[in-house]
Amino acid sequence: MQASEVIERVKDAQKTLSNVVTKTPLVYSAFFSGEHGNEVYIKAENLQKTGAFKLRGAYNKCSKLTAEEKDKGVVTASAGNHAQGVAYAAKALGISATIVMPVNTPLIKINATRDLGAQVVLHGETYDEAYAFARTLEQRNKAIFVHPFDDLDVIAGQGTVGLEILEALDDVDCVVVPIGGGGLISGIAAYIKAVKPSCLVIGVEPEGAMSMRCALDRGSVTCLEAVHTVAEGVAVKQVGALTFELTRRYVDAVVSVSDYDIMDAFLMLLEKHKMVAENAGALSLAALKKLDLKDKKVVCVVSGGNIDVVTVSAMINKGLTRRGRIFCFSVDLPDTPGQLLNIAQVLSDQKANVIKLDHNQFMTFDRFSHVQLQVTVETNGHTHISQIVTALSMVGYVVKHVY
Amino acid sequence: MQASEVIERVKDAQKTLSNVVTKTPLVYSAFFSGEHGNEVYIKAENLQKTGAFKLRGAYNKCSKLTAEEKDKGVVTASAGNHAQGVAYAAKALGISATIVMPVNTPLIKINATRDLGAQVVLHGETYDEAYAFARTLEQRNKAIFVHPFDDLDVIAGQGTVGLEILEALDDVDCVVVPIGGGGLISGIAAYIKAVKPSCLVIGVEPEGAMSMRCALDRGSVTCLEAVHTVAEGVAVKQVGALTFELTRRYVDAVVSVSDYDIMDAFLMLLEKHKMVAENAGALSLAALKKLDLKDKKVVCVVSGGNIDVVTVSAMINKGLTRRGRIFCFSVDLPDTPGQLLNIAQVLSDQKANVIKLDHNQFMTFDRFSHVQLQVTVETNGHTHISQIVTALSMVGYVVKHVY
Repeated sequence: MQASEVIERVKDAQKTLSNVVTKTPLVYSAFFSGEHGNEVYIKAENLQKTGAFKLRGAYNKCSKLTAEEKDKGVVTASAGNHAQGVAYAAKALGISATIVMPVNTPLIKINATRDLGAQVVLHGETYDEAYAFARTLEQRNKAIFVHPFDDLDVIAGQGTVGLEILEALDDVDCVVVPIGGGGLISGIAAYIKAVKPSCLVIGVEPEGAMSMRCALDRGSVTCLEAVHTVAEGVAVKQVGALTFELTRRYVDAVVSVSDYDIMDAFLMLLEKHKMVAENAGALSLAALKKLDLKDKKVVCVVSGGNIDVVTVSAMINKGLTRRGRIFCFSVDLPDTPGQLLNIAQVLSDQKANVIKLDHNQFMTFDRFSHVQLQVTVETNGHTHISQIVTALSMVGYVVKHVY
Repeated sequence: MQASEVIERVKDAQKTLSNVVTKTPLVYSAFFSGEHGNEVYIKAENLQKTGAFKLRGAYNKCSKLTAEEKDKGVVTASAGNHAQGVAYAAKALGISATIVMPVNTPLIKINATRDLGAQVVLHGETYDEAYAFARTLEQRNKAIFVHPFDDLDVIAGQGTVGLEILEALDDVDCVVVPIGGGGLISGIAAYIKAVKPSCLVIGVEPEGAMSMRCALDRGSVTCLEAVHTVAEGVAVKQVGALTFELTRRYVDAVVSVSDYDIMDAFLMLLEKHKMVAENAGALSLAALKKLDLKDKKVVCVVSGGNIDVVTVSAMINKGLTRRGRIFCFSVDLPDTPGQLLNIAQVLSDQKANVIKLDHNQFMTFDRFSHVQLQVTVETNGHTHISQIVTALSMVGYVVKHVY
């Protein structure tokens, strides 16, 4: 495809989307700028309608259907943002939508999709089985399948994110984009390289789901055997044929980040910007420290914000432990009165706030003379933890870190 | 004060603040609009620099000081948003700032204020003692005291929130504002009533800290004996003399909300808008159901977003329990093998995900024949909980709700 054609397709998509999607804010981040020595901006697609960029591609695709195709309805498979994007788009365009979800999909996500007017079919144990069944329904009902990423109209819709970035910050030096199936980065990179080839486009995958990295290394689309990541929104085993070609052609580099990097980025976004990202959405911020850039204008696309509050709570708790704000340790105590008082005295002196205590007679090496006390305290950081460990040692207790 | 003078003061403040504060977005909320039958907008002061509106008043006040006064430096007492507002403003204006905080202030807040260049003095067990010591420092060092709310320049600064609301939505019908000391609502109400008297201004206090409600009822400023609320940012025992007069004159009504109302509003803001508010900041959203309005344009001022992530996690966990997403119950079991299997079978059949188990031989009425099993499960709502209770009853177990 020629540059002029890419530009035309994405501009056309922007016109189509103009009354439907939110032009999400590009937020300057004093915090991430200071941390990374670049001028960092956040493209906040977590504030998009339906909570993610997916609406752009889904709506663009659905609006391109002929009247006859619209009558047949659309079908897709997704347990996540694509489901809500398609449901919203179909409803807005008066098209009937069927979404196949794996049977173990949380009721919350099923209801969110039903609330948008789609028919939800529960089928299969995994996404792959749900996907296969959606393709069966496509044949059986002669419905139109809306692919989550490997479709030029979907990709052009996602490309409007790149267009909006250039509109808002025309001297941008680098755009950082999460990669799942590759639809978002394909659209953004194709558009940006057509308009402003000097701007870098960097993709980010979680270490446990590097399907694009593997495809690039092997020179062809590869199916991973398994994926393991906290960023379930980009836990994709196999990228698309189209998205692979577009990424190979237009993307400057693909980097990976650990679950811990993602957790840190998630928490900093919450604390410093009062915004919530889903884990996959925070990939771009997590990748900032991997960039070999200084004093450049860098835009991180935060691609979505659909995260269950139970997961938010879990991310916070893990993050606090990592930062030394929560410390869980155990000590073996002689089974005699007064031991708990000694420990309590040290913790009080050290201003460590106890949040959990577990006193267990059965969990020690030498069960007849000792009991094990497991303690969780709120702390002010790793220095504070060292002080507590030292203070307990000074009165004869050996501290074992539990996590 | 005449309407024209109020308008002039607030417009002057806006000019002063123009290169310092963020013009925060006014976000349309499809969710809250649908829930409450009004067209609801969120004025997102949680996205303000320093995380709260307080910067507006503090900067306006500091910028009004003479060169001589600026040389003397400013002093204040605060453990919260005002501390950061004053520190930021003083730094931006090249003024030295001393902030007195109670000795038990979390290190995180102390560091955030120090990072902004202010000198932090820890003094007193309570805010009142810190306040008294700040007034002593004011005398001793001939410094300028920056009151958190009871000061016309501070109030005019906060009034710029009202100005921005009218700029963005000139046909607004009602503005809902959290009340702590009353500075924010005084500035907003004075400005709005001067420019558009038909627009309602409603104040909101938590049930456990109704210092403005009490003052209005008694006809004079009253000091509450104690305050108890999750919204610690507005846990103020006594409103100001100025803010009381302005509220009495310009505010149409002051309503109150429970801690549960606040928790619900906090969670809905997080889930539906991917934004975090501090509890005090969510008061205005919590009050929506108290308004006797239909089909009106209502703006809720979300005044701040400075909330510790530990508190976020706690709010989520309490909120989930209230929604029936977490269910904690106990059953007494005969102390014989196989009992745990029975329970586990029922929970598995009911698709209730176990997150905590506590098996206690010592905590029953009849300790020689029973053990108590305490179970926490993830559930899909109150209907699901009823189904689980019924299923356990069908196999002979009596369920006690723990919370």
